[in-house]
Amino acid sequence: MEAVIEKECSALGGLFQTVIADMKSSYPIWEDFITKAGKMQSQLRATAVAVTAFLDAFQKVADLATNSRGGTRDIGSALTRMCLRHRSIEAKLKQFSMCFLEGLINPLQEQMEDWKRGVNTLDKDHAKEYKRARQEIKKKSSDTLKLQKKAKKADNLGRGDIQPQLNSAMQDVSDKYILLEETEKHALRRALIEERQRFCCFVTMLRPVVDEEISMLAEVTHLQTISEDLKALTSDPHKLPPASEQVILDLKGSDYGWSYQTPPSSPSTTMSRKSSMCSSLNSVNSSDSRGSSGSHSHSPSSSSSSSS
Amino acid sequence: MEAVIEKECSALGGLFQTVIADMKSSYPIWEDFITKAGKMQSQLRATAVAVTAFLDAFQKVADLATNSRGGTRDIGSALTRMCLRHRSIEAKLKQFSMCFLEGLINPLQEQMEDWKRGVNTLDKDHAKEYKRARQEIKKKSSDTLKLQKKAKKADNLGRGDIQPQLNSAMQDVSDKYILLEETEKHALRRALIEERQRFCCFVTMLRPVVDEEISMLAEVTHLQTISEDLKALTSDPHKLPPASEQVILDLKGSDYGWSYQTPPSSPSTTMSRKSSMCSSLNSVNSSDSRGSSGSHSHSPSSSSSSSS
Repeated sequence: MEAVIEKECSALGGLFQTVIADMKSSYPIWEDFITKAGKMQSQLRATAVAVTAFLDAFQKVADLATNSRGGTRDIGSALTRMCLRHRSIEAKLKQFSMCFLEGLINPLQEQMEDWKRGVNTLDKDHAKEYKRARQEIKKKSSDTLKLQKKAKKADNLGRGDIQPQLNSAMQDVSDKYILLEETEKHALRRALIEERQRFCCFVTMLRPVVDEEISMLAEVTHLQTISEDLKALTSDPHKLPPASEQVILDLKGSDYGWSYQTPPSSPSTTMSRKSSMCSSLNSVNSSDSRGSSGSHSHSPSSSSSSSS
Repeated sequence: MEAVIEKECSALGGLFQTVIADMKSSYPIWEDFITKAGKMQSQLRATAVAVTAFLDAFQKVADLATNSRGGTRDIGSALTRMCLRHRSIEAKLKQFSMCFLEGLINPLQEQMEDWKRGVNTLDKDHAKEYKRARQEIKKKSSDTLKLQKKAKKADNLGRGDIQPQLNSAMQDVSDKYILLEETEKHALRRALIEERQRFCCFVTMLRPVVDEEISMLAEVTHLQTISEDLKALTSDPHKLPPASEQVILDLKGSDYGWSYQTPPSSPSTTMSRKSSMCSSLNSVNSSDSRGSSGSHSHSPSSSSSSSS
């Protein structure tokens, strides 16, 4: 009986030690994860900054198209919508990057310290309990041995009143073994739960980050539509759209302020020529009530409303 | 008649010049776009490298969970799937970044040179045609003026045979004006088409990049399911799953090679203790045919098949 329990307890204790050793040896993996996550996060942050600058430049190209006279107002409007959708993606990227740092990297780093303390406590507690249980078994066993000797002696003398005492002592040893086994099982269960909790904790931190990542997906649908709009709008690059032909017709016979400036013979007059064109352009805009070809400034608020 | 056409031609020519000037003045905007796009692209590339390193570290954490004894095999498997999905996103990110450079930034840079040449040619051609048409009008007008004087003189002398010649000359002037107007309209149309083509060309380069982006974001869909799996798997971190309880039961009464190593009194014995545990762990794995708690190495191919 004792031999079987002894073997079982040894197996339980051995597995306990392996689990503890596994947890202790896993720190470099977690630390590597935190390091690489930190590097990726700072890259994401730098990318978000680059995206902001890129989208500013993109919006200027969209404005060019919106304000040009070549019938590209619709293209400009679609490009503006494309830009605005990317602003949402940019915002989501920043949120994602922030959540990655504050929801995963930093808490995991702090958690690591708790984990280290937790495992050390488990290990120490187990060693203490094991030692105490062992000592109790040793004491009870030696008590039993003494009683057995006493019983043998008493038996030889013909006195049988020690037997109940001996039985009780042997029961005590057996009980202590069962207690040791329960202690070992309890310790092993605690170690296994501790190990499992780490991953549960990790997943709890990871999921909100993944959710942020997923929310970037929501913007895709819109990109698809805008991309198709752009395809349709640019399907015939060698032909002017009716609106632009209209500009030419309107100009003929209109009282627009356009006037041809004789090209200068020397480059020194470029400035004055430019400024005179600029003023004639402005006079067109002020008189162009329909706004089909004027260079009205494209404000973000009007872009925003057109994209909804 | 001439005065009206003169005004119209001046308006057409003025708009032509404005369109040309707009195109010429837009280069800084396009160049800024190319610069910012280049910076963003190199950030994306650097991010992709950081993502690769991060996913390697992430996979190691997933392997920890898969190989641990705390009943986290399912969590490890879900984390591996999460990692594999991110490998797809990583691959798409690299493709996107490559497409951004090779499909948009580089071709746009080259296109800029064509645009500059194209606009200069348009401008020169127009100036030449305008000058020639003007000279022809001037010549025809002076011819008409001469004929008018001649006709007056002839009229005074009572001779009326110059009138048909004069009519024809006046018709010539009128025709030349109409030709000038057509020339101006043609030039304006070419300039407007040139301007519009730029944006069509830009959109043609942009769309495949956006398509790559969309396909990258589309990978995110798969994350949702895995995230929900992970949530379910880690819903009760304080309880061992049945599989782990089974490990404890199996260990009891089994002939596993686990055996408890008395904790060392000095750190010098750590190595030998570790190696003995390692060998006992190996013996477990070799005898554990069900593989419910062994530390089988988690190969990428098996991860891949479990994620499908």
